[in-house]
Amino acid sequence: MSAKRQIRFNAFTMNTVGHQAPGLWAHPRDQMHRYRQLSYWTELARLLERGLFDGIFLADVLGIYDVYGASHDAALHHAVQVPSNDPLLIIPAMAAVTEHLGFGTTFSLTYEHPYPFARRMSTLDHLTEGRVGWNIVTGYLDSAAKNLGMAKQMAHDDRYDMADEYLDVVYKLWELSWEDAAIERNKATRRFTNPLRVHGIGHEGVHFSVPGIHLCEPSPQRTPVLYQAGASSRGRLFSGRHAECVFMCMPTAQLLKRSVDDFHAALAECGREKSDALVYGQALIITGESRAKAEEKLAEYRHYLDLDASLALLSGWTGVDFAKFDLDATVEYIENDAGRTALASFSKADPSRTWTVRAAAEFIALGGRGPVLSGSVADVCDQLVSWFEATGIDGFNLAFAVANETFEDVVNLVVPELQRQGRYRSAYQPGTLREKLFGRGPRLPANHRARQLVL
Amino acid sequence: MSAKRQIRFNAFTMNTVGHQAPGLWAHPRDQMHRYRQLSYWTELARLLERGLFDGIFLADVLGIYDVYGASHDAALHHAVQVPSNDPLLIIPAMAAVTEHLGFGTTFSLTYEHPYPFARRMSTLDHLTEGRVGWNIVTGYLDSAAKNLGMAKQMAHDDRYDMADEYLDVVYKLWELSWEDAAIERNKATRRFTNPLRVHGIGHEGVHFSVPGIHLCEPSPQRTPVLYQAGASSRGRLFSGRHAECVFMCMPTAQLLKRSVDDFHAALAECGREKSDALVYGQALIITGESRAKAEEKLAEYRHYLDLDASLALLSGWTGVDFAKFDLDATVEYIENDAGRTALASFSKADPSRTWTVRAAAEFIALGGRGPVLSGSVADVCDQLVSWFEATGIDGFNLAFAVANETFEDVVNLVVPELQRQGRYRSAYQPGTLREKLFGRGPRLPANHRARQLVL
Repeated sequence: MSAKRQIRFNAFTMNTVGHQAPGLWAHPRDQMHRYRQLSYWTELARLLERGLFDGIFLADVLGIYDVYGASHDAALHHAVQVPSNDPLLIIPAMAAVTEHLGFGTTFSLTYEHPYPFARRMSTLDHLTEGRVGWNIVTGYLDSAAKNLGMAKQMAHDDRYDMADEYLDVVYKLWELSWEDAAIERNKATRRFTNPLRVHGIGHEGVHFSVPGIHLCEPSPQRTPVLYQAGASSRGRLFSGRHAECVFMCMPTAQLLKRSVDDFHAALAECGREKSDALVYGQALIITGESRAKAEEKLAEYRHYLDLDASLALLSGWTGVDFAKFDLDATVEYIENDAGRTALASFSKADPSRTWTVRAAAEFIALGGRGPVLSGSVADVCDQLVSWFEATGIDGFNLAFAVANETFEDVVNLVVPELQRQGRYRSAYQPGTLREKLFGRGPRLPANHRARQLVL
Repeated sequence: MSAKRQIRFNAFTMNTVGHQAPGLWAHPRDQMHRYRQLSYWTELARLLERGLFDGIFLADVLGIYDVYGASHDAALHHAVQVPSNDPLLIIPAMAAVTEHLGFGTTFSLTYEHPYPFARRMSTLDHLTEGRVGWNIVTGYLDSAAKNLGMAKQMAHDDRYDMADEYLDVVYKLWELSWEDAAIERNKATRRFTNPLRVHGIGHEGVHFSVPGIHLCEPSPQRTPVLYQAGASSRGRLFSGRHAECVFMCMPTAQLLKRSVDDFHAALAECGREKSDALVYGQALIITGESRAKAEEKLAEYRHYLDLDASLALLSGWTGVDFAKFDLDATVEYIENDAGRTALASFSKADPSRTWTVRAAAEFIALGGRGPVLSGSVADVCDQLVSWFEATGIDGFNLAFAVANETFEDVVNLVVPELQRQGRYRSAYQPGTLREKLFGRGPRLPANHRARQLVL
């Protein structure tokens, strides 16, 4: 009998007050108002490492949710991803109190030049001793672009073309500028670096001109573990080419399976193997010592949800101003200016049901566009295994309702049960994040685009 | 009898292998090769806090020293400020292990948009609980500009004009976007922020367009403590307008005094008081248990200096390629393309002496362009007090020769002797960095430009 595939967990959060549970910051036990304190993050990191999570995954937006009612008032009132602080700066303190936990951070390449960004990520990879990952995003809020002096953000597909060049620049800096043998660090010969083994990358492209060398010596992983969450067809090609970890957020196992299959096809088109990337499906686990206690907890959480806050989030995600619709209006297939049809997933989720604005807002208010898995520990483990087996994902990107109660429940209750079932590891693998995730590394494999570039 | 003025210490370092002691990374006891490890920085932070230092001051350049011989080979060979990592990312881990130490970090505003930068600094001010400072620089290496897609860096005075607008943008974000009463964080009313008290800054300038609100809630100091080191006449005006702490690096007490007086005049021109800013003079202390031991140490350090490395540094600072000159050529008043005459200070330092390329390289190799104060603990304290009294500075920005031996000697030997003489405090003041430095705050005073802007 072959060993059961083991489930992986990532924690999904953000350096802000209200991430994906609009209104729940006001829950009496919620701790997210402490996001400004290092101690909040070091406590969370220790908890997740105790639960043998692959990593903590930090979302980020540089803009504000101001589509709803053409105003940022609802976002501010309910702390919907605003105020929000920089995600990179909480990683070093979390790294200092952990040994194995990975740190995946979102960083939008539309808004910063690749030369200083490459140095930032190399610095993090050094300081974490090879435990850093980068969630490549191209930005989706016009409000961010406007504050960076652009009239509005670049068109969707243009962003991906620019992103491909951006990645070539940082790949060259990370992978090709310094040979492995460049660093001698020899106090006897008094030579730190052999200059003949350090190369200017000579990049001259459409968007960027970077002639020089990378400023950092090679870090443990060189290129950080690459995360992506793109769901559009251009986004899928981008993921197939670059991503090592993909986050998906789908309301049903059927839709999630289709996305997983699509992604595996995109990987193959790019000459990569299924085993070259991991897929995490988003989910929110709400559990307790018994089914009754879990149900009570879920009802209590729902009490703190806020419809306005939820619609501010949904309007920002989709670009559709839901303030213009009646709460009981049907929402399927609303097209917005950018041609995004994110709302289609609601009718796909349950075609038999009539989706209203209210229903959509209530749906995303817990766990975003992913499922809520609730019930007793046994119930939740059954659902996790069922999703896991039905979809072909490698693990879950776990959202939270109440910080850090949700993750405490997972670590204290769900992880031990999954371990008992042989569905969850009992110790970390050694090495860098890439070695822990793939059992090989620390560098990207030879079939990845970053390893195929030449100067 | 009035109390003696007390001397302040700052530690001057950089997230790199060789900062201002070219070649000394190869000293057997030097630890700078550990710059990639969090533990190096947390050890240093604890040491400096034990010594009641005002703060750690992190230099940074985004470019490479490639003026010497029109090549970066010497810089790479001897690790002259390359490889170098990002300075911001080491601060959170140091903050987590200290309670009082300040963190001044260099960040060049020529190379990053003010909108994300403002968020980075607010994040650091939150995470350090108000202990962060920003050393405002406009960049001086063409190599940095080239890798950011510019043909070369902006002309010197244009950089300062752009810098003034940059500062207006970040001041508006930090000081005016969120009123004090904006944050309610009230779980009972379920209102986190009062939207009526948060304002888009509506900035439309020559260089920047930033209509929106700051993404961060007000941090303890709002605007970080502002550091500056500009020495040009345009630079002095800039310092007079903005700086709260100024770093100066002069080879003689006479020259330093003149600069201090000039700066105080610039402060007055900008409607600010002498007490509104602190001046730190750069110095390198080399001492030991006895005068003989200190002399032995100094000789030993000199043994590891490297002339090539020193000339790479000097060429980068001045823009003059010293590889074109004989080591015994006289160097006074060499003009370079940018019209910088930094070399003039050598002849000013000692007009009676003939300054050769070799002499200049040897001079800056220990302690940069500042003095080396060496001898027994008593000798060093005499020199410190003498410079302090003769120049009107408020303290010293201490360079190091061997990490962390130089700072250990200061903390273990010099600080106790200065305390005994009533010249050094015995405990930190409470509060944020600004409150510790000025006994008022945590915000900038009303006479500072940042507090006079309106939306």
